[in-house]
Formats: sequence, C-alpha cells, structure tokens
Amino acid sequence: MEKQLRLGVIGAGSFSHTHLDGIASAKNAVAVAICDVRPELARQQAERYGVPNVCKDYKELLARDDIDAITMPLPDQVHAEVAIAALKAGKHVLCEKPMALNLDECQEMIKVAKETGKVLMVGQIGRYTPAFLEAKKIYESGAIGELSLIESEYAHDYSQIGGAQLPDGTPWRMTPDRESIIGGGCHAVDLVRMIAGDPTEVFAYANNKSLTDWPIHDCCVAIMKFPNGAIGKVMNSHGCKRNYTMRSTLYGTKGTVIFDNTSNTISLFKEKFTEDEVFAGKTQKVIEIKIPVTVNNHNFAAEVQDFCTAVLENKEIVTDGLNGAKTVKVCLSIVESFNTGEKVKIDYNI
Amino acid sequence: MEKQLRLGVIGAGSFSHTHLDGIASAKNAVAVAICDVRPELARQQAERYGVPNVCKDYKELLARDDIDAITMPLPDQVHAEVAIAALKAGKHVLCEKPMALNLDECQEMIKVAKETGKVLMVGQIGRYTPAFLEAKKIYESGAIGELSLIESEYAHDYSQIGGAQLPDGTPWRMTPDRESIIGGGCHAVDLVRMIAGDPTEVFAYANNKSLTDWPIHDCCVAIMKFPNGAIGKVMNSHGCKRNYTMRSTLYGTKGTVIFDNTSNTISLFKEKFTEDEVFAGKTQKVIEIKIPVTVNNHNFAAEVQDFCTAVLENKEIVTDGLNGAKTVKVCLSIVESFNTGEKVKIDYNI
Amino acid sequence: MEKQLRLGVIGAGSFSHTHLDGIASAKNAVAVAICDVRPELARQQAERYGVPNVCKDYKELLARDDIDAITMPLPDQVHAEVAIAALKAGKHVLCEKPMALNLDECQEMIKVAKETGKVLMVGQIGRYTPAFLEAKKIYESGAIGELSLIESEYAHDYSQIGGAQLPDGTPWRMTPDRESIIGGGCHAVDLVRMIAGDPTEVFAYANNKSLTDWPIHDCCVAIMKFPNGAIGKVMNSHGCKRNYTMRSTLYGTKGTVIFDNTSNTISLFKEKFTEDEVFAGKTQKVIEIKIPVTVNNHNFAAEVQDFCTAVLENKEIVTDGLNGAKTVKVCLSIVESFNTGEKVKIDYNI
Amino acid sequence: MEKQLRLGVIGAGSFSHTHLDGIASAKNAVAVAICDVRPELARQQAERYGVPNVCKDYKELLARDDIDAITMPLPDQVHAEVAIAALKAGKHVLCEKPMALNLDECQEMIKVAKETGKVLMVGQIGRYTPAFLEAKKIYESGAIGELSLIESEYAHDYSQIGGAQLPDGTPWRMTPDRESIIGGGCHAVDLVRMIAGDPTEVFAYANNKSLTDWPIHDCCVAIMKFPNGAIGKVMNSHGCKRNYTMRSTLYGTKGTVIFDNTSNTISLFKEKFTEDEVFAGKTQKVIEIKIPVTVNNHNFAAEVQDFCTAVLENKEIVTDGLNGAKTVKVCLSIVESFNTGEKVKIDYNI
Repeated sequence: MEKQLRLGVIGAGSFSHTHLDGIASAKNAVAVAICDVRPELARQQAERYGVPNVCKDYKELLARDDIDAITMPLPDQVHAEVAIAALKAGKHVLCEKPMALNLDECQEMIKVAKETGKVLMVGQIGRYTPAFLEAKKIYESGAIGELSLIESEYAHDYSQIGGAQLPDGTPWRMTPDRESIIGGGCHAVDLVRMIAGDPTEVFAYANNKSLTDWPIHDCCVAIMKFPNGAIGKVMNSHGCKRNYTMRSTLYGTKGTVIFDNTSNTISLFKEKFTEDEVFAGKTQKVIEIKIPVTVNNHNFAAEVQDFCTAVLENKEIVTDGLNGAKTVKVCLSIVESFNTGEKVKIDYNI
Repeated sequence: MEKQLRLGVIGAGSFSHTHLDGIASAKNAVAVAICDVRPELARQQAERYGVPNVCKDYKELLARDDIDAITMPLPDQVHAEVAIAALKAGKHVLCEKPMALNLDECQEMIKVAKETGKVLMVGQIGRYTPAFLEAKKIYESGAIGELSLIESEYAHDYSQIGGAQLPDGTPWRMTPDRESIIGGGCHAVDLVRMIAGDPTEVFAYANNKSLTDWPIHDCCVAIMKFPNGAIGKVMNSHGCKRNYTMRSTLYGTKGTVIFDNTSNTISLFKEKFTEDEVFAGKTQKVIEIKIPVTVNNHNFAAEVQDFCTAVLENKEIVTDGLNGAKTVKVCLSIVESFNTGEKVKIDYNI
Repeated sequence: MEKQLRLGVIGAGSFSHTHLDGIASAKNAVAVAICDVRPELARQQAERYGVPNVCKDYKELLARDDIDAITMPLPDQVHAEVAIAALKAGKHVLCEKPMALNLDECQEMIKVAKETGKVLMVGQIGRYTPAFLEAKKIYESGAIGELSLIESEYAHDYSQIGGAQLPDGTPWRMTPDRESIIGGGCHAVDLVRMIAGDPTEVFAYANNKSLTDWPIHDCCVAIMKFPNGAIGKVMNSHGCKRNYTMRSTLYGTKGTVIFDNTSNTISLFKEKFTEDEVFAGKTQKVIEIKIPVTVNNHNFAAEVQDFCTAVLENKEIVTDGLNGAKTVKVCLSIVESFNTGEKVKIDYNI
Repeated sequence: MEKQLRLGVIGAGSFSHTHLDGIASAKNAVAVAICDVRPELARQQAERYGVPNVCKDYKELLARDDIDAITMPLPDQVHAEVAIAALKAGKHVLCEKPMALNLDECQEMIKVAKETGKVLMVGQIGRYTPAFLEAKKIYESGAIGELSLIESEYAHDYSQIGGAQLPDGTPWRMTPDRESIIGGGCHAVDLVRMIAGDPTEVFAYANNKSLTDWPIHDCCVAIMKFPNGAIGKVMNSHGCKRNYTMRSTLYGTKGTVIFDNTSNTISLFKEKFTEDEVFAGKTQKVIEIKIPVTVNNHNFAAEVQDFCTAVLENKEIVTDGLNGAKTVKVCLSIVESFNTGEKVKIDYNI
C-alpha cells in the first residue's frame, strides 16, 4: 500500500470540511489529529471523518510525535503564527493562501522554513483548478503564440460571508488589513503570475460601494506590465451581485483562450485550423472550440496529495514560500497603488 | 408622406454600402448625390441605390442647392476637413466617428458649427446598438443600483483590414496618428461615457505584439475614475485572434449586466427577484436572466434617422460636437498615459 | 447592369414587407405592381417601397403586360387559387409555403404549371437559412459520416399571432384545415426532407392544451423512417411559451451537428480531429466546435433572387411544384396518423 | 451519532467506486464487506475504502450476520438473481437500474420482497440528479402550467465502453437482451415517468448504424401518450459522437423548462413575470431564466442515504419494485414496437 503522510489539521471550522474531504480522497495523506479552540467542533469533525485524536490547543497538536505535517483551515490573520510554530515544532506545513497579510510575516516564514529544513508550501488552490491547468497547457503548447494580454478576475459576492470572529469580535474577513485584493483577489493575481510571470509594475483603482460597512475596498481593478512586454489586468470584487466567476482571457498572437473556474468548458480561438475539410473558406479564427473541463473549484485533494508527494519523495514544490510571498507582494503593491494614486514598481527581493 | 432630408454622401468606398442601406431604410432620409475621387465607384453605388447625381470632387457636391446635409464614409484623417467645408457650405453634417484624430480639429469643427448655425452630429454608432441601449435602459431603471465598475472592450482583429490608401500610399488605418484606441477603441470609450459619464483620470498600458508592422499599439488596457467614485476599464485590441466582440459589464450595487454588440442576448443578475414562487430558497443573485436583443452592430439606419429628425424638427442631438470631442479627448489621454507611463488627469475645456 | 425580373406582389399585408424588402435587396428583381383587397394598404406599401402601380383586384394585376412573375404574401388558403390564375395568365409564380393545404390543389398547380410552361417555385424559405445551409454543407462534406437520426422542431408561439381575417371573419391561421404541422411545422418537415430525403412512413401524436380555442392541434410529435434506414423526428408547437426556435440535430456515425434558425452559431462534434497538438489525450468527440452563422430567419432576398435567376437563366429549381407537394404530403400523412392513431406509409405518386 | 445501516457491496469492478464513495459520504451508511469473483479487486477496494471484510462468493457475504443490506454494482443480467438471493437471506436490497432485463424477473423480485418483508429499492439514479429535481420542482410549483409535451434523451457514446465479460466471454453491455433503450435509455424513460406519469401507448423506430458489431439497436426514438393527454418523446443513442447529455424539455401551457444532467444551469421560460420594472414592454416569454444547478450525474450518495433512511426509519420508498418494473415495462414496450413496427398499448398489471 502507498505510504501516507500523517497530518494534523489545525482548525475545525466550516472550511475544515474541504481539508478533511481532500485528505480522505488523497492516496498518500491521512488525518491523525484535529484541534480547535472550540473543542466541540473538533470532536464533531473527528467523529464524522474518523480522525482518532482531538485537542483544543494547537500547540498540543504540534507536540505529538505521530504527526508529520499540518494543514490549517484558519483565518488569514494567523497563518504566519501557526506556520512558524509548526515549522519550529518540526512539522512540514501546507499553509493556506494568502501566505500572510504582510511581507514581514512572509519573510519570517521563509527564514524559519530554511532554518528548520521543513517543507513550507503555500496552498494556492487555483494551481489545481482543472480549467486553469488546461488553459496553461494550451498556452504552453504554443497554440496561441506569444502572450499579449492576460485578464483575470475574482468576482465573488462576500456580502453573506463573514467568517468566524477574531478575538476582538470582528469577523475575520472584515479587518482593514485583509483587503479584498489580498484575501480573495490573490487567486486572480496568482493565476496571472502562473501564466505570465512576475509583473514589474502595477497601477490600480479601488472603491467601496457595495459592502459599505466593511473597512476595505470591495472592488478593485489593477493593470500591470510583465518583463516580456505582455500586459495584465486583474479585477477583484467582493460586493458584486452575480454568479461567482474567475473568468480569464489569454490573448496570444495566434489565438485566444477564455476560461474560468465555474464553467464546464474552455473556449479556444485559433488563427488557423489544420482541420481543412469542413472549415475551408471560413474565417477560422472566429470558430470557438469548446473544450470540456471538470468544474473543481477547490481541488484540495490534488493540492494535499502534491504536498504529501513533495514531502515523502523529497520533490520540489512549485508554490514554495518565495512563490507564495511574491503573490502577496503583488497584492500589496496593488493596495499601495490605489491608496497613493501612483503606479508602483515591484521588486521581488523578498 | 413624411418629410425627407436630402443627403449627399461623400465617399463611395466599401463603407458607403452601410450609409446607403441605412439612408434607404430610414423614413426621413433620401440620398440625392454621391461623390468619390474614384468616379467609377460613385457611379456603381449610384446605380445600385438609385442615387440620381454623381460627381468626383466633394466640393462640387457641396455646391449643390438640392442637398441639405451630408454623410461621410471616409477615412478618419479627413473627417475634419470635409466636415468644416460642408458646414461652411451651409450643409448639416453627420460626421463619422471618431470625430477627428486630434483636439485642434475637434475644436475647429465645433467653432465652425456654432458660427454657421448648422447641425454637427458625430456618428457614434454604438449609441444605436440594441444591446447597448437595452443595458443602458436596465441601468437607468435602477434595477442594478448604483454603478461601481464598468468594463468594456473592443476586440476586433484588423489584420486583414487595411482600408483605402491615403495620398502617400499608406492604408488609412495604418498611420501613426490613428492609434487603435482612437480609431476603434473609441467605440468602447464612448460606451463607457454613455453610461458612466466623463472619466476624470486614466492610466493605461499598451503594446504591439500581433500587428508588428503597423506603427501603432495593437493592444491597450486603460483604467479610469469617474466623478461619482465609479471605476472604469477599457480594453482595445486590433490584433486579437478571436470573434469580434465588445463584451461589457456593468457592476452595480444591486445587480450586474453583461452584454456585447455581437451576442443576441443580454445577461442580467439581480440581488433579488420579486418573482417568489419558483425561486424561493435560491440564492437569487446567481440566476442569470437572458434577455434577447437584436444583433445590429452598425445600425446606421437609426443613426441617420435620428440625425434627420434632429435637423427637420430642430431637436437636440446627444452626440453633438462637444460630446464627440470628449470621446476623442479620453482616447488621447489614454495614448498620453501609455506613452508617458504616467496617469493623466482629464479636463474637458474643449 | 444586371437584367431584372419584373414582379407583381399580390397582397400588401404585414408579410408583404418581407417580400418588398427582399425584392429591393435582390439584384435581379424589381417590384412593378402591388395589389390588395384593402387598397389603402397597397398604396401605403407602394409609396414606401417605390412601387409604381397599385390595384385592388389581383386579376387586374395579372392582366398587366409589364409583369413577368408574381410573389404572394397571402394566407395559405388562397395559395392554390392565385398561383393557378397567375400561371394561366402567363406569369411565373413564386408560391409561398406551404404550397397548399391539400394534395388536390398541389396536383392541380403542378398540372397547370406543366401546361403553361411557366415556372412554379414553392418558397420553402428554410432552404435559404444560413444555419441550415451550413449544417447541410457539413453533412454533405462527410464530416459526420452516415446519417443515423435527424431531429427538427418548429417551436413558435402563435398565441398572439392571428393573421388577417378570411371572408367568413376567421383569422386565417385558425381554420381547421390549417393544422399547425402543415402551416408552420412544414418548415421542420421540409428541413428534414432537405437533408435526409423523403420519409417512407410516419407515426405521430398530437394534442391541444395551450391554444384551446383554436380548432387545431397546437402540439405534435412525429417520427419517421427514411429509405436508407435513418430515423427522423419532427416536433411542432404553436402554443409553447419560449423563444422561437427550430433547433435541429443531425446524428451521424462520425459526428453530430446541432443548429437552429435563431442562434448565431452551429455546434459540431467530431469523432476525431486532425488537430493534434492541443487536443492530444482528450476524448475529442466531446469537444464542441462552434461555427458562427448569420441569423437570417426569413431570407426572402436570397429566395427571390434564386427564383429570378431560375426564370431569367432557365435553370432548374430545387423546390419546384413536386418538391413543394412532397412536403405537404408528409405533413398530411402526419395529420392522418395522429387522427387515426395508426402509422401511415407515404407514397409520392403526386 | 447517527445510526448507520451496515452494507455489503456485491461487486468490486469499476462501478464499485461510485458505490463506495457514496456510502462513505452518506451519513447513515457504512460498508462492512465487499465481494467479487475476482478477489484481488475486492481486496484492493477494501483497502482503499477501509472496508473490513472481503470475500469471493456473494453467498458467503449474504450469510454474514453483521450486514443489514446490500448494494450491487453488477451487470444488468444478474440483478435479479442476486437481489432475490439477498432478499431470501434477509437482507434489504438497493438494486441497480434497470431492475432487470425482463418482466418475469421483475415480478419474481417483487414477490420475494413481499414474502420476506425486506425493502427492495431500485436505484434509478436520475431521481437524485439535481437538475432533474429542480425541473420537477419548477413543474410542480405550477410555474409552467399543465404539461403538454415532455422530451428526454439519453445520448451517450458507448463505443469505448464494453464492461466486464459475462461467463461466455461477451462484454455484458453487448448481449442482445440488453437493448440500449433498456440498459441506458431507461434513464430517460424513468425521467419521463417521474414527471409525466405512466405512458399508456408507445410507438418507436430504431436502427443500428454506429455500433454495427453490437447485437442491439444503438439508436431509438419513441413517442408516447400519457393519461392526461400529454405527449412524450424519448431518444436513446449509444453510438452518437458528441458530449454525453440527457437534454430534456418540459412544454407547459404557461412556460417551458430545458435541462439536462451535464449542464450547470436549467433554463426556464415563463409566459409572464411578476418582475415588472425591467421587462415592461418585452415579450416576456422569450426571456431565458438560467438557474444554476450542481452537476452531479451519479448522485449515489443521496440515493444510498435515502435507501438507508427508508430502512432505518421504516419509510416509504418511491422507486420500489413496482415502480422499477414499470420503467422496465415501458422500455420493453418500446422494443416491442420497433421490432414489430406497431404501436403498443401498455398495461401495468405487473
């Protein structure tokens, strides 16, 4: 039988379902303990998912010998603290996205991971969304030529999503340091980075017209330049009234790809088919090729399996600490731009 | 029978079909003369559309007494010259879009129109596109609340469209002063202005990766601020390989509208239906209401009819010289931004 | 200049717009006279479309020497009478669909056409619908292999469409001899015949649940066998509450085509692409290829142009009297089947 | 903790994944044993899903005391034999669809269930497909009025799906008694019955042009009458080259619903909205309301949970033996019709 990484799950709130389902489904992961400051939640999840050990304090969980690594369905604000403690306790860490809400924390996490020699992976879940992977594959096949423009968006109405309360009573998604472009829009920023590379400059506008009692900007549009001359655009909305979508478009010199995380098809336009018999005489570039994809918007099973494989087989991970920090960096630069009204050049000396 | 405005059509190139079809279809317009420097083209169109008079020199056409007004299917570069001559000859002018390629010309046109007391209308054809009108109507009904973000685009592959040659032999769409955001992207800019008002500041990036032998930027993304706090984004591409589209989205505080000029439906999402029986218990905002619209991307019939009505009945026109010039001004500000790398504040002292 | 056939238009009701627009647009057709029992309607249309002659009695129109042929935007009930009179008066006839409401009339029309040597064409307008032609072209290219099943439908809500009154005061679409499968469903029957050939046997059910005060069956489903073993299905609804559609599907041994008259794309599925680089590893048959088509549901311009060409150049016509009668025959067989509850074998000894 | 029904799973082939995933996910089910004539398959699945007991002979499994009920991911040909043996062994049975391939077996199964007092449920999985349930809910709400026509289809290419071999070496999907309308088309037949009731008469055509070496009809179209005057149509294709779909349409007197099992939206058209402000002046019936649904085409989790609840709480089950047999009866009547070329009246004295 396949070797399994023994995981502790820190946090038993609503998002822990996704983690526990994914761990159950992954071939090389097993959940050994779960903890939560609300012990009844931890017990409940343990019973449902057959997790043998329960505790209240995450430090107690980290002290266990039978745990190799942790996952953390936790508010963004505590990612850094918990990840650092876990690394210091000798555990590998699959850190939820965004890696942290500021760069100091990111840097500290990277430093501790290096010192302890433990694996730190940032769970940018979009890297496992089938539609995104298919779009990336098409782009990398050369089918659409060189990239000219990439557009992505994270349009997700948060008006009914508050989240658990922080110690001061604020729902964790409503604190000023959790700008929507960092907490949610980082999905679109990371997607853009995955395909087009690291932007060198951004400019952004933002406003707050829908979630008027949230101390953040609910809507933001940022544009950016990439080293090879491509242009990018990211839109983020936490207040929009519509279906949830991360509709994204890749404009290449030979074709176009349109895709999102909630559609069961990808659209591809190509300058020219090799398919001659039917389309002769047609302006081929306007023919839409719709490729079916599985809708799997939170593919934690694949993510945790990749993490476990990396640890068990000592493999490289793509979204390591530095990579996770770069996405945070771009998001923070966008915030800086819309706050100052100036363009921001981005360096990645993290 | 309805009174008809007597029109002279200046230009008998391929785009004159659209003008002549529209004039034939409009109830209050009749084409009386047509001219072109290539007289065989003028004769051909006259025969096909039953236009009684033909000439070579547009000044000859302007000298006729039996013409009240002119339309001009002509290259962007000569809009100003011809419009000014026509106004001075005592003719009303339906000027093609963009009004001109620079502001000096726009200002001169406005001045001459004022002096002569003749009507100068700029034919921003998007103002007559059924999908755009329906979207505007929905927005103005209050159904989607206050506007937060408007996105529009003009994605139209020009790689096989050159256009007639200018005197120096250059196809008219390929001159450096006809940036793609001015010549084509003005459709998206004007649409954004029609709905959200006049932007006060823009920032833009542009590149040229597809039409590499054109002396322009084939791709451009601009973002902008509006007085009431709304944000806007316009994308323009002349090099994209895909179906032609002006896909646009209005994000309001209570709903979202998605539409373009080439789709036969508009999509509307609303925070809440009053329609209770079926949707009770559904998160209503994710229900997509698809409203059929006629695809009529170049509705010149409605445009010329509106123009004739304005002249014949002495009515206000919406896209007068000032309005046409404002769209040019925004486009030029976008060009300035992507050329300088700086944001540009827009004043409308035109 | 191109030679033009001189046409008389018999009928100036609402549908005459389609005829007059089409005649104006066709290169080789000109309308010379128009008549209607309601002379004010004839005058109105003559003025709008520049038709020089007007009369009240269609026999007066048929007596004119300056008319070569007629078109007839008229109720189905009088197609035969007018067509026969026109043929006998030495005029070619472009007869509206359905050719007639019974076979006796069809036979008489064919006989008189033969005797007079004049052209009788039945205007099965679907033969000029771009989407239908594209689907036929794809099928005939062999791209989807041999036909197994063809499905078509005519779903068109007639609840707000009555039509002009017959002499006895009944709106013409509401008489018992104008079963919905004959008057409207013939579009779908003719489409099926155009692609799959002449069915040899049909079985049908019908009911009337929506247009309960109409003396017809508002809904009908018929299935049929073709000589080469293919199967067909036609659905007709005059009472449905939905968008108008003639959605049709061709199932072949190597692919599938889905299309209708109101969509701006056709969908094609193929067992195998030759397009290898992108789709390697994909089950290619589930990739949907969407081919844009012009929506032109009542392409009378092309129909009348084809008719004029046939007359002027002495060419074969596809939808001659026999062909028109075969579509009527299939429709009548469907009516016989749902009235008797038995399958009906169809012979085409017409 | 919730009470759980202890299940034995008979069959460890590829379809057993669906059963074991569903059992894991259902709150009130637990898999206690699994058997297969290929013991290595049984062991493999037991290990992966944590099933404690494995055996080779299903009779051995039925002899266990710690099993309350069984599920059977098995070829259609052995449903009856295994179900009857299980009932006689005192186990409740969740029988896969179709219940059996002939009526004699269905009758015997019903009889034995009655004699033993054990629950016999037929797993018509479509009864748990979210899109089908939503369509049913809309219909039952009265939103589309009285049903006039229901169309359904099962278009699923089986050319690459053979299935395990029967003792004589034939893949089980390729035997003459497993007509495609019984084995696959029963999904569409059952859907039609779920919404419109039991048809009283059918007529059908079939052919075999794609799977030419299969001893069945790969394509079939059947039409039918329902007691209340509604009409139905079912299409089945095992040879089609296209995406898998069960596209279905309900035509009611006040609206229309279009849905399938592979789309993430349902379309609803209604004669009239109560939503007045936006749509005033629109022909409202052509507005398409797209309602999102979860794509869950094989929702075994819900099915097995319903089964367990029925057993544990002594509740009625909808798809009991009689109901399952009725679907088989309709399918067999369709086969009789296309084999004899005659319509078939259906009685349900089962």
